[in-house]
Amino acid sequence: MAKLIALYKTPADKAAFDAYYFGKHVPLAKTIAGLKRYEVNEGAVAGLQGDPGIHLAAILSFDSMAALQQALSSPQGQAAAADLANFAQAGVDLLIFDSKDV
Amino acid sequence: MAKLIALYKTPADKAAFDAYYFGKHVPLAKTIAGLKRYEVNEGAVAGLQGDPGIHLAAILSFDSMAALQQALSSPQGQAAAADLANFAQAGVDLLIFDSKDV
Repeated sequence: MAKLIALYKTPADKAAFDAYYFGKHVPLAKTIAGLKRYEVNEGAVAGLQGDPGIHLAAILSFDSMAALQQALSSPQGQAAAADLANFAQAGVDLLIFDSKDV
Repeated sequence: MAKLIALYKTPADKAAFDAYYFGKHVPLAKTIAGLKRYEVNEGAVAGLQGDPGIHLAAILSFDSMAALQQALSSPQGQAAAADLANFAQAGVDLLIFDSKDV
């Protein structure tokens, strides 16, 4: 498995962020071919070293790193990446991982 | 569902980190009651805003936020938290989320 984890930093206007994210970005990102699972995680409550400043974490799962890379370079993946500029002005870290159960 | 995401910052000695993490910390953390799934993600390759400096991300899944909170306060959870000092000197952010599929 491979995962893309998107860590969205806390926005100035959380309600506006959420409205755009769930209303526009999620439907757009779900058009990406090869996407096996899309989890949204809300409500970070702890950081060992102070407030981590994360509003929302999205976890997108793919069968393999090759499938993930292909998804990112597809027109749908490119559109989803370009859409970040419309709502993630506070910043976002996109982490791409090989994933395994332990 | 509820998830704990542990983001480990890049250590000075990756090989030593990995040896301790997989040899000691994972077996210890797996004793935590209520832990439903434990995924380890390696090889962050991208950050939109420069290198995010993350070496490894662990995703621990629980049935509910109540189960997660109970796990953290259990002796096994406390032991796993205390163990961080033995290998995560470079820093770790622990994020606790309510999680849903979209």
